Amino acid sequence: MLKKANAANIQNWLDKINTYNSTPDFGTTRVLFTECEIEAREYVKSEMKKLGLIVREDSIGNIFGTLVGSQPNLPLVWTGSHIDTVLNAGMFDGMAGVVGGMEALRLIKESGIKFNRSIEVVVYTSEEPTRFGLCCLGSRAMAGHLTLEDTKKLKDENEKTLESVLTDLGYDLDKFKDIQVKKGQVFGAIELHIEQNNKLEKKGLPVGIVKTICAPTNYSVEVIGCQSHAGGTSMEDRRDAYTASCEIALILEKLALKCNSEYNTATVGRVEVIPNAVNVIPGKVKFSIDIRDCEFETKTELIEELIKEIKKVEEKRGVEVNLIKENNDVPMKCDQTIVDILRESCEEKKIPYDMMISGAYHDSMFVGEFTPVAMIFVPSKNGISHSPDEWTDYEDIALGVDVLAKSLLELSNKEKL
Amino acid sequence: MLKKANAANIQNWLDKINTYNSTPDFGTTRVLFTECEIEAREYVKSEMKKLGLIVREDSIGNIFGTLVGSQPNLPLVWTGSHIDTVLNAGMFDGMAGVVGGMEALRLIKESGIKFNRSIEVVVYTSEEPTRFGLCCLGSRAMAGHLTLEDTKKLKDENEKTLESVLTDLGYDLDKFKDIQVKKGQVFGAIELHIEQNNKLEKKGLPVGIVKTICAPTNYSVEVIGCQSHAGGTSMEDRRDAYTASCEIALILEKLALKCNSEYNTATVGRVEVIPNAVNVIPGKVKFSIDIRDCEFETKTELIEELIKEIKKVEEKRGVEVNLIKENNDVPMKCDQTIVDILRESCEEKKIPYDMMISGAYHDSMFVGEFTPVAMIFVPSKNGISHSPDEWTDYEDIALGVDVLAKSLLELSNKEKL
Repeated sequence: MLKKANAANIQNWLDKINTYNSTPDFGTTRVLFTECEIEAREYVKSEMKKLGLIVREDSIGNIFGTLVGSQPNLPLVWTGSHIDTVLNAGMFDGMAGVVGGMEALRLIKESGIKFNRSIEVVVYTSEEPTRFGLCCLGSRAMAGHLTLEDTKKLKDENEKTLESVLTDLGYDLDKFKDIQVKKGQVFGAIELHIEQNNKLEKKGLPVGIVKTICAPTNYSVEVIGCQSHAGGTSMEDRRDAYTASCEIALILEKLALKCNSEYNTATVGRVEVIPNAVNVIPGKVKFSIDIRDCEFETKTELIEELIKEIKKVEEKRGVEVNLIKENNDVPMKCDQTIVDILRESCEEKKIPYDMMISGAYHDSMFVGEFTPVAMIFVPSKNGISHSPDEWTDYEDIALGVDVLAKSLLELSNKEKL
Repeated sequence: MLKKANAANIQNWLDKINTYNSTPDFGTTRVLFTECEIEAREYVKSEMKKLGLIVREDSIGNIFGTLVGSQPNLPLVWTGSHIDTVLNAGMFDGMAGVVGGMEALRLIKESGIKFNRSIEVVVYTSEEPTRFGLCCLGSRAMAGHLTLEDTKKLKDENEKTLESVLTDLGYDLDKFKDIQVKKGQVFGAIELHIEQNNKLEKKGLPVGIVKTICAPTNYSVEVIGCQSHAGGTSMEDRRDAYTASCEIALILEKLALKCNSEYNTATVGRVEVIPNAVNVIPGKVKFSIDIRDCEFETKTELIEELIKEIKKVEEKRGVEVNLIKENNDVPMKCDQTIVDILRESCEEKKIPYDMMISGAYHDSMFVGEFTPVAMIFVPSKNGISHSPDEWTDYEDIALGVDVLAKSLLELSNKEKL
C-alpha cells in the first residue's frame, strides 16, 4: 500500500533548494545557468540518486530521474516541473512539482507495489523566460519548437547566446536533436504545481485538477515618439512615447477585463523608458505584453482589437508603434483519461478537489504536444505567486503528492490511454 | 565699435567641447564630475585663459572667467551657463551660453571700448539633475539653497555623496560658505541659451528675450500594488502597480493640457518597474513627475487637483501611492531694465526678436534670487532639446552673442538698475 506523503520531507527539500538563491534578502531568484541554479541542479540530481533513481541529462539540461519499472521497454510515465525562477520570486513555483515528483517516486518505490512502466521525474530547463526572454526552453525543445539554430539567436541581457552558455557548460550540442521526444516514447505525464491563483483557497480545497492550461501570446512593443526637453516642449507639440505607452497598457487592461472567455489575463510586466531622465520627454519606450486565454479564439479576437486600438493611438499621438510577436501558443486541453484517473485517486483518498483552468502556462503545455498530460494544483496563499510572498502549505503539497503517487502508479500499470 | 560675433569661433569651441562625451554613438552625455566632464572643464578653463580672462573656481566647481574692468571694485556683471548634460543629449543646451559668453567677452576686449565693471563668464556646476537628482547645484548653492549639509545627503546612483565626490576632486569644503553670493556683489546677469522649443523657428526669428523663467516642481512617486503571476492572477483580483501608474501619468497629462496658464508642462520622464519581468504583475513602480509653469499659482492648483485624482486611483485600484516632493521652485520674472537693454540692443543691431517665456528652467532662476537677471534665447531646430537631434545654427548663436556683448557692455557701464 502507498504510504502518505511526508510533509517534512517536502519541506526539507524545498528549504534546501531555496538556499540556492541570488537574492536572499528579497525573495528567491534562481536564473537559468547562473551559479545558484547550477548548484540547485547538482543538489536535485544528488537527491534523486539517494532515492535510487537513475539520473541523466539531455543537451539542453533537462534532468531525468528514472525509477525503473518491471517492463522498462514500455513507454514511460512522467512527472516533474522546473527549478528556475523569475526575479524576486517565491520558493514553490516549479520546485513543488519537482520535489513532489521525487516524494511520489519514493512512496511508490517503498510501497513494494509492482509497476510496469518506468516512471521518471523530469526537471525541465528554464520554464521561466527570465534569462532568454522565452519560456519553457526545455519542454519547448522536447516538442521540437526550439532548434539548435534558435539557440544561436536567443540572447541574454549580456548578449550571450543560449548556444554559447550550453557549450561553456559542456552540454553536447551534437546531440541536440536527441532532445526532441517522439510520440509514443512517453505514455503520459502528470505535473504537480502550485495554483498561482486564489480559487482553491477561497473554496478551502487542497487539490485542483486542471482541465485546460492557458497559453500565452507575448509581444515586445516599441513605441517611438520624440525625445525632447520636459520644460521646453509645449504639451501640444509633444510626441511622448511614455504617455502613448500608458494609453496602450490601459487599453489592454480594459480589453482583458471585458473579454468573454472563461479565463483571460493581460499584463504589461516589463517596461524600459529611454532615456529615462526626470526632465526629458521619453523618446522611446519598450515594453512587454503578455496575454493568456483558455481559448485560442478569444485570445486572437482580443489581439485583433488591441492592434486596431494601437493604430488609433499612433495616429492621435504621432508616435510609431512596432509590435514583435514573440510567441503565440495554443491552450492545452488536458487528457480526459488521466483527468479521470486523478479524480478517482482523489475520491479514493477522500481528498476534496475541484476542476479548474490554469491561467499560468506550464511545461505541460509543450509536453502535451507529444504525450497526454494532466496537472494537479495545490493552493497558493492569497493567490500570490512570482513574488516573495508566494506560499503553499507543505501539508497541501503532501496531499497533492498522495494523488500524484496513486495516479502515476495507475498510469504505470495501464495498458493504453 | 563691437565687431560681429564669429560663428566659426563658436562652432570650434562647441565641437571641441562635444568631444568630451561618454556616449559618442548616441548623442552627448557629459555627467557631472565624470571623466569627460572634468576634461571639458579643463578645456574651458584653458580657453578662458587664452582669451586673457582670470580664471577661478569655487568649492562646488562653479568656474569664473573674469575680464577685468576699469573699476574692478564695482559689483560685477555676469553671463554664462553650464556644460553638463542629461543622458544622450545634444551639444548646445548650456554650452551655447558658455561659449557665447566667451565670444562676447572676446568681442568686448578686442573692441577697445572702455568698460567699468568687470565682466565674468560663469560655468555653473550641474544645471542638469542627471547625477544627483537635483538640478542647478552650483547656482542653487550660490543662492544659499544648497548647504554643505545637503551635499552629505545628495547621493548618486552608486550611493556616493556629492560631498565625497567634491572632496575626492580636491575642492575645499571648508570654504563651502563662500560659494553663496551676497546681494549687491553682482550687478546683473544675462544668460544666453538655446530656446528648447520651436516658437522662434516657427516665427523665423533669430533671438528671443525671456520675460519669465518657468520653475519646476518635482515629485518622486512610488506606487505600491501587489506583485503576482501574470497568468495566475485574474484581472479582477489584481492590484497592478503599473496600470495604476499609467493612469496617473495620463491624468497628469490631461491636467496640463487643460491648464489655463500662459505656459505649463507636465512630464513623467523616469520610470522604474519592479520586478520588471514579462510574466509578473508589477508590485511596485517608481516614477518622476516634473511640472513647470510660468505662474506659481496655476502650478499649485494643478498639483492640488492631481493629488485629488491620485486619491481616487488609490481607492479604485487598491494601491498605495506615496508622493515625495523633491522641489517646488518659484518662477523667476526677469529684470525689466535688463530686458529693456536687451530690446534696445536688438533694435540697434536690427536683429528681429520676440518676447517669450522659458519653459525650461535655467541657472538664472537661482541667480535671479541675488541679482537682476535676463535671458537671450536662440532658436532650436524643430524645438527639440535633451536629445541627440538638438540643433541650433551657429549663425543664430552669433546673432545672440552680438546682442549679449552689446548688453553686457551697457550693464558694465551702467550706474544702477
